[in-house]
Amino acid sequence: MALIVQKYGGTSVADADRIKHVAQRLAARHAAGDKLVVVVSAMGSTTNELLQLAAQVSDHPEARELDVLLSTGEMVTKTLVAMALHTLDVEAVSLTGAQAGLQTDTSHGRARILAVEPARIERELERGRVVIVAGFQGISEELEVTTLGRGASDITPVALAAALKAKQCEIYTDVDGIYSADPRIEPNARRLRDISYEEMLELSSLGARVLHPRAAELAMVFNIPVVVASSFEEGTGTLIHGGVTMEQFNKVRGIADDPHVAKITLRGVPDQPGIAAAIFEPLAEHHISVDTIVQNASVERLTDLTFTLASSDLSAATKIVKEAAKQIGAGEVIAEDHVGKVSIVGTGIQSAPGYAARMFRALSEAGINMEMISTSEIRITCIMQETDVEKAVRALHATFEMEKAEASEL
Amino acid sequence: MALIVQKYGGTSVADADRIKHVAQRLAARHAAGDKLVVVVSAMGSTTNELLQLAAQVSDHPEARELDVLLSTGEMVTKTLVAMALHTLDVEAVSLTGAQAGLQTDTSHGRARILAVEPARIERELERGRVVIVAGFQGISEELEVTTLGRGASDITPVALAAALKAKQCEIYTDVDGIYSADPRIEPNARRLRDISYEEMLELSSLGARVLHPRAAELAMVFNIPVVVASSFEEGTGTLIHGGVTMEQFNKVRGIADDPHVAKITLRGVPDQPGIAAAIFEPLAEHHISVDTIVQNASVERLTDLTFTLASSDLSAATKIVKEAAKQIGAGEVIAEDHVGKVSIVGTGIQSAPGYAARMFRALSEAGINMEMISTSEIRITCIMQETDVEKAVRALHATFEMEKAEASEL
Repeated sequence: MALIVQKYGGTSVADADRIKHVAQRLAARHAAGDKLVVVVSAMGSTTNELLQLAAQVSDHPEARELDVLLSTGEMVTKTLVAMALHTLDVEAVSLTGAQAGLQTDTSHGRARILAVEPARIERELERGRVVIVAGFQGISEELEVTTLGRGASDITPVALAAALKAKQCEIYTDVDGIYSADPRIEPNARRLRDISYEEMLELSSLGARVLHPRAAELAMVFNIPVVVASSFEEGTGTLIHGGVTMEQFNKVRGIADDPHVAKITLRGVPDQPGIAAAIFEPLAEHHISVDTIVQNASVERLTDLTFTLASSDLSAATKIVKEAAKQIGAGEVIAEDHVGKVSIVGTGIQSAPGYAARMFRALSEAGINMEMISTSEIRITCIMQETDVEKAVRALHATFEMEKAEASEL
Repeated sequence: MALIVQKYGGTSVADADRIKHVAQRLAARHAAGDKLVVVVSAMGSTTNELLQLAAQVSDHPEARELDVLLSTGEMVTKTLVAMALHTLDVEAVSLTGAQAGLQTDTSHGRARILAVEPARIERELERGRVVIVAGFQGISEELEVTTLGRGASDITPVALAAALKAKQCEIYTDVDGIYSADPRIEPNARRLRDISYEEMLELSSLGARVLHPRAAELAMVFNIPVVVASSFEEGTGTLIHGGVTMEQFNKVRGIADDPHVAKITLRGVPDQPGIAAAIFEPLAEHHISVDTIVQNASVERLTDLTFTLASSDLSAATKIVKEAAKQIGAGEVIAEDHVGKVSIVGTGIQSAPGYAARMFRALSEAGINMEMISTSEIRITCIMQETDVEKAVRALHATFEMEKAEASEL
């Protein structure tokens, strides 16, 4: 009698046949004795179609109205899944985000969950019902419908799992798990049977298509095991959890890559307090996220500061940084597009000697020049020319013998 | 600063262009100083598409889930109308049936409005906003979404107009008003400028395509003037109201026809108390509506009883009546399909001598045999062969010179 929260993404409920397939999976699981709370997305391209409708009547649809409009997509799916379960003689009830107790702030279009009030869901579960919840939506203190922002519908199942103290959260999508590297780049990439929350977050470029980073953070905070798997195949998937086995410790688990990075360097920055804030605060005010930041050792009280950001933000950021550089008396600002980022991720690798050296050797032997290096507890990242990214992924995958199954998987 | 409740049907909001057209009409009316509450239907064929989706996953969709599913259709429209108004710099807010305070009973799929709690709408109107309300839906005491049943979305605007003490309720649709006869039968049929509630109800076969009879009853009870008009043309429509001018009194206002009627006759019914109940109670238990009932004068304590009903109910009703006839000791039961019904309607005509005689003379001269006659306060109805219905409509329209404009319209 385990309590399980599941989530099915848009492609898993794209039409009536797939909805019936999902209902059959739920019926089997229900018959096996599990209590199920199931979060569903809008069918296939519904959300885009609704956005197109809004664009046809308004160039700048008001956020409140847009949220109500988009929330109807998930409402349609949840009723259809409940109906399909009824035809299989499974008791089921569908709830809106509001009925499911998902209380959010008032930021329409990108609301954050403030609290989950699970009383209604618990009451329905006690009556033996499968509970279907419209994902991606909640209700604000002003009793207005809110949406959590596109792509963030993974938040709902994890938040519900936390509030309901579920045994596990299962995210079903069209991707069957998290791989040791991007399979489109490295054909030998292997699906990981399990991975830690921290590794998952550092592997965001591999994992983000599978599980939204905010959902992974929430799972980590509440220690909810999350399975990401395909709804089209059985027995696959990757478990994201808190435990790391001794055997997995000190091992490169995955290689993340991002070929769409830009880089800004400030030369001759005065090495004194408040300088970093003077540069990064105006960027934050313009909603520009900065990724890796590297500051070289100070020479004669002047230092060089380099950071990476998304290519799409480069021109806006360059303008802002040039203005800031003038005010703090820094030197030249060099903006560079077309750089890429490759990271190796694994719990313990940063503190264990040898991993960084092996990484740099492998890249060097592949003829790749590293422009920046940055490390975290469980990650070593190199910035390089965009054109070197794929070559780097393959070289590192081979060097760390990542095509081999781990002992726990044998 | 009159408070007006409007309703736009599905064809009036069928696509983005028509929604923008409706928004322009509302903006002009708002600029003229009127306070507007606007009830909207689902876009075009949306409701049918949602029903088809439900049919694809379930042969018998549960009523609760179906109501939530169908309610999304009107939710989409209301947000789009509000967005379109915002682009015209008109302050607007869209509300669900629940937010608009439409409280119903728990009969999913055919709920009745129990009360309207207009506080939220009044607050929004005070802020100078146009209020857009999703039609066809409400919320039950159990806080579940309910729908008022298909075709009954005219109820919502009239109920809101009553609760808000609106000056007028305006129903915009693809039909431009109520005609003196069905224009497909009588090309000279004239659109009536105004009509009384009672006449409207008696003319149901002409009016039901324009305004649902339950809505007309509600308007009569609360004395709300209702204008039915086309959203595609300006300055047309028919006003349905309580006042009848002296000039309109004692005049045939419209000719109603229904060619799809069946007739059942019981011969040799014992003329004693309780007999009618013994026949009509079992029909009511089987949800069969009976229309005109005629009982002939008693001969030797035996009488003949004839009544009409919808053709589609004939075979079920015949079986029930034969059973009842056996129990009460009545004679033969004669079921007859393919009869039709033609009525002349006008306040005062029943009490004024001459109208019935002129009607019977006109039908006789047209070679039409009357099988039954029935009268109400404001109506005289003849039952005839189905094939005579169109001929009868044209003969009566000519006899009562209904193609001529009324004095009030000149």
